[in-house]
Amino acid sequence: MHAAIIDATRKSWVHVPEGSDFPLQNLPLGIFRPGNGLARAGMALGDQVIDLNALHTSGFLAALNLPDGIFAQPVLNDFLAMGRTAWRGLRNRVADLFDAANPELQGVPDKDSYLFPLGEVQLQMPVFVRDYTDFYSSEGHATNVGTMFRGKENALMPNWKHLPVGYHGRASSIVVSSQEVRRPKGQLKPDDSSPIYGPSRLLDFELEMAFVIGEGTSMGKQISTSEAEAHIAGMLIFNDWSARDIQKWEYVPLGPFLGKSFASSVSPWLVSLDALEPFRVAGPVQDPPVLPYLEYEGDAHYDIQLEVLLEIPGQEPVTICRSNHRNLYWNMIQQLAHHTVNGCNLNPGDLMASGTISGTTPDSFGSMLELSWRGTKPLPMPDGSERKFIQDGDTVIMRAWAEKDGLRIGFGEVRSTVLPAN
Amino acid sequence: MHAAIIDATRKSWVHVPEGSDFPLQNLPLGIFRPGNGLARAGMALGDQVIDLNALHTSGFLAALNLPDGIFAQPVLNDFLAMGRTAWRGLRNRVADLFDAANPELQGVPDKDSYLFPLGEVQLQMPVFVRDYTDFYSSEGHATNVGTMFRGKENALMPNWKHLPVGYHGRASSIVVSSQEVRRPKGQLKPDDSSPIYGPSRLLDFELEMAFVIGEGTSMGKQISTSEAEAHIAGMLIFNDWSARDIQKWEYVPLGPFLGKSFASSVSPWLVSLDALEPFRVAGPVQDPPVLPYLEYEGDAHYDIQLEVLLEIPGQEPVTICRSNHRNLYWNMIQQLAHHTVNGCNLNPGDLMASGTISGTTPDSFGSMLELSWRGTKPLPMPDGSERKFIQDGDTVIMRAWAEKDGLRIGFGEVRSTVLPAN
Repeated sequence: MHAAIIDATRKSWVHVPEGSDFPLQNLPLGIFRPGNGLARAGMALGDQVIDLNALHTSGFLAALNLPDGIFAQPVLNDFLAMGRTAWRGLRNRVADLFDAANPELQGVPDKDSYLFPLGEVQLQMPVFVRDYTDFYSSEGHATNVGTMFRGKENALMPNWKHLPVGYHGRASSIVVSSQEVRRPKGQLKPDDSSPIYGPSRLLDFELEMAFVIGEGTSMGKQISTSEAEAHIAGMLIFNDWSARDIQKWEYVPLGPFLGKSFASSVSPWLVSLDALEPFRVAGPVQDPPVLPYLEYEGDAHYDIQLEVLLEIPGQEPVTICRSNHRNLYWNMIQQLAHHTVNGCNLNPGDLMASGTISGTTPDSFGSMLELSWRGTKPLPMPDGSERKFIQDGDTVIMRAWAEKDGLRIGFGEVRSTVLPAN
Repeated sequence: MHAAIIDATRKSWVHVPEGSDFPLQNLPLGIFRPGNGLARAGMALGDQVIDLNALHTSGFLAALNLPDGIFAQPVLNDFLAMGRTAWRGLRNRVADLFDAANPELQGVPDKDSYLFPLGEVQLQMPVFVRDYTDFYSSEGHATNVGTMFRGKENALMPNWKHLPVGYHGRASSIVVSSQEVRRPKGQLKPDDSSPIYGPSRLLDFELEMAFVIGEGTSMGKQISTSEAEAHIAGMLIFNDWSARDIQKWEYVPLGPFLGKSFASSVSPWLVSLDALEPFRVAGPVQDPPVLPYLEYEGDAHYDIQLEVLLEIPGQEPVTICRSNHRNLYWNMIQQLAHHTVNGCNLNPGDLMASGTISGTTPDSFGSMLELSWRGTKPLPMPDGSERKFIQDGDTVIMRAWAEKDGLRIGFGEVRSTVLPAN
């Protein structure tokens, strides 16, 4: 059996800068492409990327009995499908190889050939997203949006505390950090006229986290809350871009569609639940009590700090939101138990996002819609201008990390610049 | 240039029974597996399946310059991605090879080795469904459902005649005809109690047709109504299974989720728009006028007859619905122009379903919800029992065909038996 946790006292022979998101205890998985090479699997360590394919072909991972070429693929799906034992085995083995106390790789003359500086590689989508589901699991966000559109008394719909509300999203348009996002066009409905066609005027981000399915299930199979964690290969930061005006006009009665499907953006590094294990916390008391299939034991929420920065052209980025993953009312294992309660099958690479994660204070709201309260409270920008929603040329940066007792497990960031409609 | 239409007077040297869905003028694409062979691509002709891989490897398709092994794959995606010129070229070449007036293949001693009896092969999913979108484009259906839930005056939502309302669905649980469908469990909300957990009591079918994308598009690209047809590789019958009680409780405000995602069923043969060309008809007058990006020229609706049969255990099937694809208010090219108006990218194998296709008369309603009018008008069954919704052991059969001047272009059927919840 492989341990879930890599002891916090262990250090790597690779230099890990103070405050790095990627110490030896993290080792998140990703897909990278060196200058003129092919895409392959890697792990982040400090400011370096470990070339897993090179380690594998050189025999350093031989004891794991992995298939040939498993890390030479341009997505992680096949490896994730192998299940938690395989992910844990890899993470532990790589931690051993890069441990300062272990001469095995450290003593090899060409040890540096297994590393690429993070700044010199291109990070790609870590997985082929098979199906994508978006939940709506933050009480703060659901309450804010409900209050704006239906008033405070009717903010939460009657079903909201009985089940994790969710909907299917568009998988094809999920892109990785650094890829630019184009302002969508569509139908907008001014209050005083027939619908018109044009670029969205109310472009927004949504601060979310997502988890990725490793081992799938066949149709008819339910996953209990106690089984769910073994299916979760890791987590990403997720920016669920939203065109509020397109969405408002189209979404009744069947839900969000083109107001979302133009793009969603993810961070490139898949952080395992094992790496996040030290940051488990209790969730909120769920009242009314949930049905038995949604009950769970132990702490299943995570204390992950979240931050959104907005960078407008020519200015330094400013922090506009600080939130936390623990603000979720429904946790990931409840979401997964719910998703499969009807026998819906899962596949490796399925991505499930949390919904916007807003806290209770105004500076913790996870979207411009909430931060500017429908545009009634514009945010001041460093150049004296203000923002109600996102403008062309703006860059939205989301960061996430967990930190405690000197251990920091980070996600890096998802950063996206908005291009004008074409 | 390849012709779109195969002349109606041409006959095959393969016997095509009277009333067959699959004359030489159809030649739909599918994936089949002979008794102990591998899955491969085929075309239906009469009661036979043409082995496209065998024709390709024997050189009969050499003039088409197709990649090696293109028909040895277990899905059609790569071939469909090649675009309309490739599909047309193949259909015309196969029509020539099987034309009674052409000795080329007819004169070959082992000509029968290219054919398998339809009854002796297993038909599989024709495509890997990349992303799945369901529209809501029949005015009859939207009016019926709206009337039931909001009253006659507010039946259609304000957006309905301005845009083809649609939503993202679950791609992974789309299965092919003959695969059994298990009754889902989930949260149900009785009027007089808190939500409960159990098998759906209101299992329903929805009579739909779907189209499959061939050549995809990149993000940011819009497809105009005049470009749309070239991206549609063909059509299937689509049964959008629905658990009305799960759906009713969960769907506000973000749309259908677990009430749909347990299963959808498709017919196995992908019928090309070229084969359906003789059956184009004008659509309804759209009033209010649509925005320019939804305008189109020519006849873009299709006169395709639709039929639902219900077979309860121990009884002969009875026809419970007769509808027509021309009942759609929004046609496929409008749906596609709308889907891409925000720059959402398309991929080969994307599947877009019509929404339930109901006409205006009670016998043309495309779901049990409408046929039994929420259970208030049960349907009489041959054994004296009645049906408000679908029971365990029931088999739902949907058929579709176009017919005119002695030419019949059919889809075969999608047939699914319901298993009890487990």
